[in-house]
Amino acid sequence: VKTVLLSGGTGGAKLARGLIEVCDLTIVANTADDVEMYGVHVSPDPDLITYWLADAIDERGYGIRDDTWKVMDALEAAGVPTWFRLGDRDLAMCLMRTGLLRAGARLTEAHAEVVEAMDVRVPVLPMCDEPVATHVRSGGRLVPFQEYMIVERAETPIDGVELRGIESARPTPEIRDALATADAILIGPSNPVISIGPILGVPGMRDALRDARAPVVAVSPFVGGHGIKGPTDGFCAYAGIETSAAGIARAYDGIVDGVVADEPLDGIPALQTDTLMDTPESRRRMAEETLSLARTLQRLS
Amino acid sequence: VKTVLLSGGTGGAKLARGLIEVCDLTIVANTADDVEMYGVHVSPDPDLITYWLADAIDERGYGIRDDTWKVMDALEAAGVPTWFRLGDRDLAMCLMRTGLLRAGARLTEAHAEVVEAMDVRVPVLPMCDEPVATHVRSGGRLVPFQEYMIVERAETPIDGVELRGIESARPTPEIRDALATADAILIGPSNPVISIGPILGVPGMRDALRDARAPVVAVSPFVGGHGIKGPTDGFCAYAGIETSAAGIARAYDGIVDGVVADEPLDGIPALQTDTLMDTPESRRRMAEETLSLARTLQRLS
Repeated sequence: VKTVLLSGGTGGAKLARGLIEVCDLTIVANTADDVEMYGVHVSPDPDLITYWLADAIDERGYGIRDDTWKVMDALEAAGVPTWFRLGDRDLAMCLMRTGLLRAGARLTEAHAEVVEAMDVRVPVLPMCDEPVATHVRSGGRLVPFQEYMIVERAETPIDGVELRGIESARPTPEIRDALATADAILIGPSNPVISIGPILGVPGMRDALRDARAPVVAVSPFVGGHGIKGPTDGFCAYAGIETSAAGIARAYDGIVDGVVADEPLDGIPALQTDTLMDTPESRRRMAEETLSLARTLQRLS
Repeated sequence: VKTVLLSGGTGGAKLARGLIEVCDLTIVANTADDVEMYGVHVSPDPDLITYWLADAIDERGYGIRDDTWKVMDALEAAGVPTWFRLGDRDLAMCLMRTGLLRAGARLTEAHAEVVEAMDVRVPVLPMCDEPVATHVRSGGRLVPFQEYMIVERAETPIDGVELRGIESARPTPEIRDALATADAILIGPSNPVISIGPILGVPGMRDALRDARAPVVAVSPFVGGHGIKGPTDGFCAYAGIETSAAGIARAYDGIVDGVVADEPLDGIPALQTDTLMDTPESRRRMAEETLSLARTLQRLS
């Protein structure tokens, strides 16, 4: 089954890890969290998805397992603020990407080298090649996303979200092709505002999804009525998205044909199951169940 | 004695190390060797001078002693060409500089942070804030300087040297001020073509040197009629500079008032001495002797 997964960070990455065992997968990853740190282009979501697929994700959930910290230690000793901590191997991946970008490569081409370097055989496509940068308005200030999340610990109420540069972004040829030829399109259990929101916000992305022949199935990021990780609830509250299966169905209205969630849902084809993916087995099971809903919808159409 | 030293790499750096013990030093460093590697701005000459002054130079003569190689190892494992090898701590200095440059700092400001991070109390000023990039024409190809030196091992004959961007460069306010207020100006024993040549090639630099009230003393880079390090002779042959004290005096004609060399020299005030600086004592002695010639010339003027 040719499958495309739209994904933010951890939730989508876990589903992706299950999916590579059971289908022919292409991932479209949020890049609105991308940031330049120490002059280096960091792509948190594409990278952590890649590390998950390489079975190399670290205990923090975004770096490379057993990485070392020589460069961060040196930066810290030099008095450079190091709240954004990149391990040495993680940094090497970012340097490779940055070198390619400065030499004129598209972000898609540059990240493909990271994927290959991690021995991952599945395309992890940036949602666009153009720079998009999420900013959060909070307490009267507009703060870059990573700074809001890490420095401010996402503790202050969210008054606004800006996706800078999104109006100039376009789905890449690789994404258009993957969507047009997919048998199933999945929206991962990622933050609908700041992870899936930017992907769907790329001008032309919604049309490409609507034009695709494949059914679109969303996996709810809510477990027991809440996001698993801290900030999801806050962003949903700001965006007026109810943290429930019904909320997800409404958030993706006009795009999704089915929803997988841990609660019953009316008005749209849905599959109720245990959506927690904290073991390899549960990740594979979730992948299979989500694809089975997609397959059912395909037959219906 | 307020002293300004124009310096390339190792030779000038060794003299600088001697000079900081005996005078109030400011260094003007060649930046035409600067290069972007892995997307990171590397400044070989300013950095190695800084590491020399910090007593932290490594056995290769351009990195930081006892550095580690985690990032290079990871890049190599990822299949990235790593002929330009930066240790982790060295890389951290480059990342600090790169981050500052991308945030809009001048190269002078960015390198000042590296100098401070290395606990060096002496200004190491880039020769200009504008990008200048030495290219070498050899075997019908125009090759970036570091590639010619490291990948091609400077083995093929030199048919040309291009200092790309030099026409847009200008002496910085910091350099103008240092030269105008100096008691002595020294030209270090560095390659006259590719190290001192770019510094003197910055439009306005020769005028600033001529306008300075301080005498200008050059230290010959030739020991026994040859450059100590490989490529000097080849570049001098290309440029028609005789590898002798007389050759240096002619190369800096109109700028220098005196020359320090390991051989006698007629027609210009000169000091003959052992110019090898392979020990702390010899570096300090060379610093003292060079300054004493400058002091004599000052009295004469």
